[in-house]
Amino acid sequence: MVLNNLLPHQQARNWKPIIKEFEAAIGKNGVVRRKEELLTYECDGLASYRQRPALVVLPRTTEQVAQAVKICDKHEIPWVARGAGTGLSGGALPVENCVLIVTALMKRILDIDLDNQRIVVQPGVINSWVTQAVSGAGFYYAPDPSSQIVCSIGGNVAENSGGVHCLKYGVTTNHVMGLKLVIPDGSIIDVGGSVPEMPGYDLTGLFVGSEGTLGIATEITLRILKIPESICVLLADFNSIEEAGAAVAEIIGAGIIPAGMEMMDNLSINAVEDVVATGCYPRDAGAILLVEIDGLEVEVATNKQRIAELCRKNGARNITTANDPETRLKLWKGRKAAFAAAGHVSPDYFVQDGVIPRTQLVGVLREIEALSEKYGYQIANVFHAGDGNLHPLILYDNSVPGALHQVEALGGEILRLCVKAGGSISGEHGIGADKSCYMPDMFSETDLETMKWVNQVFNPKGLANPGKVFPTPRTCGESANLQKVKQFEGAQVF
Amino acid sequence: MVLNNLLPHQQARNWKPIIKEFEAAIGKNGVVRRKEELLTYECDGLASYRQRPALVVLPRTTEQVAQAVKICDKHEIPWVARGAGTGLSGGALPVENCVLIVTALMKRILDIDLDNQRIVVQPGVINSWVTQAVSGAGFYYAPDPSSQIVCSIGGNVAENSGGVHCLKYGVTTNHVMGLKLVIPDGSIIDVGGSVPEMPGYDLTGLFVGSEGTLGIATEITLRILKIPESICVLLADFNSIEEAGAAVAEIIGAGIIPAGMEMMDNLSINAVEDVVATGCYPRDAGAILLVEIDGLEVEVATNKQRIAELCRKNGARNITTANDPETRLKLWKGRKAAFAAAGHVSPDYFVQDGVIPRTQLVGVLREIEALSEKYGYQIANVFHAGDGNLHPLILYDNSVPGALHQVEALGGEILRLCVKAGGSISGEHGIGADKSCYMPDMFSETDLETMKWVNQVFNPKGLANPGKVFPTPRTCGESANLQKVKQFEGAQVF
Repeated sequence: MVLNNLLPHQQARNWKPIIKEFEAAIGKNGVVRRKEELLTYECDGLASYRQRPALVVLPRTTEQVAQAVKICDKHEIPWVARGAGTGLSGGALPVENCVLIVTALMKRILDIDLDNQRIVVQPGVINSWVTQAVSGAGFYYAPDPSSQIVCSIGGNVAENSGGVHCLKYGVTTNHVMGLKLVIPDGSIIDVGGSVPEMPGYDLTGLFVGSEGTLGIATEITLRILKIPESICVLLADFNSIEEAGAAVAEIIGAGIIPAGMEMMDNLSINAVEDVVATGCYPRDAGAILLVEIDGLEVEVATNKQRIAELCRKNGARNITTANDPETRLKLWKGRKAAFAAAGHVSPDYFVQDGVIPRTQLVGVLREIEALSEKYGYQIANVFHAGDGNLHPLILYDNSVPGALHQVEALGGEILRLCVKAGGSISGEHGIGADKSCYMPDMFSETDLETMKWVNQVFNPKGLANPGKVFPTPRTCGESANLQKVKQFEGAQVF
Repeated sequence: MVLNNLLPHQQARNWKPIIKEFEAAIGKNGVVRRKEELLTYECDGLASYRQRPALVVLPRTTEQVAQAVKICDKHEIPWVARGAGTGLSGGALPVENCVLIVTALMKRILDIDLDNQRIVVQPGVINSWVTQAVSGAGFYYAPDPSSQIVCSIGGNVAENSGGVHCLKYGVTTNHVMGLKLVIPDGSIIDVGGSVPEMPGYDLTGLFVGSEGTLGIATEITLRILKIPESICVLLADFNSIEEAGAAVAEIIGAGIIPAGMEMMDNLSINAVEDVVATGCYPRDAGAILLVEIDGLEVEVATNKQRIAELCRKNGARNITTANDPETRLKLWKGRKAAFAAAGHVSPDYFVQDGVIPRTQLVGVLREIEALSEKYGYQIANVFHAGDGNLHPLILYDNSVPGALHQVEALGGEILRLCVKAGGSISGEHGIGADKSCYMPDMFSETDLETMKWVNQVFNPKGLANPGKVFPTPRTCGESANLQKVKQFEGAQVF
């Protein structure tokens, strides 16, 4: 891993012959090397971190991915895999002098087997395309991140993405049956399979959520589900977060598992109404609850009534329900636009992603409010209430010196709150470059050491997505600032 | 791993001081060394393989397990973990001169958190106790192997056990949220946690189903579910397996996911009626289908009607349904007793466990019938029809020379059928000692090599459950015969 006391990415390289090798393997049009074209690839959805890669390659087949990885292995070049680049934790952030292996051109649906409810796709296939490919036959793919019309399945697998329907249906890992993978020595392996029960170690589960540190998935077998007979969305507004939180607790306590159960606080409601003007979310509400119920018609009707009763019992002021697709979409519109709306009402915003046990919801939200006052930044709360997955949006102005640093510290305090409450530092966005420094808050040294062992098995030279997931001695704030300073440094000139 | 060219288990040892160390760590009453007491531990549920361990230790705490593993590590003694010893693949079969670490005394329920729907148990807790502990409050634990009143959660975790309810609710791995583990160097690590979303590598998923080759779980956090409002069992009998199979396909195709959907063929039906005389299963039926439906009352009522219609459409002769617990139990009784019944109608029987894509059901069953004729052994079929998990029971007489060998060959052909159909060599019983030789039928050399890498990370000295899961150069028949010959050899004398 270390040559001449320099890490691979610090070594001076003669890139010309290496580029020739990549071009021979992938074709000239699959290699991006011009500085201005590389700009696109400097960051992923976590735009506050930037680093230009030395080179971008765009393979189209498993074999080409394997070739690219082998070239990196041979020359000890660090590499980072990237899907659509919509990730929010900097998992696809390039490292200095790396090769970025982008799966965006691997967009083929390879097989559809409706009888056995599975589909095989390349990693560049967009999340929503999977549902589109099978919906005519009455099926859909359950995990639905907010970014589902732009994010790719490969990225979903890397980050083990969630979505509003994960309350009932689970996150990406619950829907991946098998993977064809290129591991860091360039070998191609198959893990899992086309039936859910597979003997041996569950390497499929290990790879899902490993954020590109163990290999690149080049073929993904997904489970698809039958579209429910009936779907209903219920919108309830409350005077306070406490009331909405109590309703959530009672709904779950009653044994009802909605397909999704989302909460938005007053600040989010107003941001959304300012920007997309849904007209559905009352501006004076302390919180709204959006509950999606699916199943048989009779089941949905019964659950709708029960949920409405529990909401009313806990102080709901108005309850609207929608059964037809168009009205359902209208009720969801504001929630789906919540992050974007934050970007309109504030010069900048920072999305946090943490998990708490559902029972701690109201207490933790109160503590977040206190932190908001302490730091002097407004925090809009939009979250998956049913499974305790919080998404506080910290509103700030990046042009104010020191603001980002403060916001990062505030975000860190929120994560530590989550850990203290018995939760987790990431629900669905991953650790990436952003949160590796918080890993020791969640895991003991032995626990982290164990994960590193696993990493070293697959990634002995440390070339696959270095610096991600695992903590380095630097603190989080420092790491971020360092990356930011490096923003326009260090790019390769050929 | 290799000293003086001898594997650890082949080395001559002075056991006396080692026993003293175990006694100091666990207490004298936690160490079993007398030959006649060791007899109990010679095999697990796969009784055709036997090997006496050198020593059995029965720790009561995580710390004691860690001490025991450390002593083994220090002296390079191979060790095998064992729960209740009900496994059917020989996963807990001792190896020559090993220490058997038995978790049977670790029977404490450590924590119950109903609000967050989880329970923390020691590995020796019996599967059905989990439900018993929480059923008063309206909860249950979903995975329900046939052996649930005797098998332990630790063993369920090791083998990733299934059960009749796994069609809707998934196998053990879908219900394990976190584990405290002792890994082969004696370290204690925590994987997963008390919320479902945890960052970093999914080591929980990796450990579940690793059959004691990566460590021993000493604390297990399980997800518990609310007891459904309504449960109904539907029994339908058909003239043929083909008709019953077509009904299964249509039920699933209609988007209904029953809690369980089991099929039994004519031979199983008659075996069961001979032995437990349920009076419910018509002796002249080609196949019966048992379908459990759960959910809201309205949902169960609707699904019951739809399933009954689909059964009738596909030739069902009689349909009986049961809503009250007592009648439900009566309908299930024969299915639950099916393995035991095979033991009554035949001197010996061999349970196979394989998975096929549901769509291949009828074709594969026909091929199994052809194999039955070819080998001249009757095969009773009892299986989880909904998820394609077959359990052919091969009836034979072990006192006939060569019979076991033939039956194993027949069992092997059935497994290869499953693989050829795109399925798997184990649905829920694990690989253990029994099926390691079939692993190359399912996995390429590279795939197996990858699993071995992972094994070596945790188990670098190869002391944890050696010879299990991974294939050795020996063929399956040879391996079994070798083990059988060794049955009464090689026990230690102190």
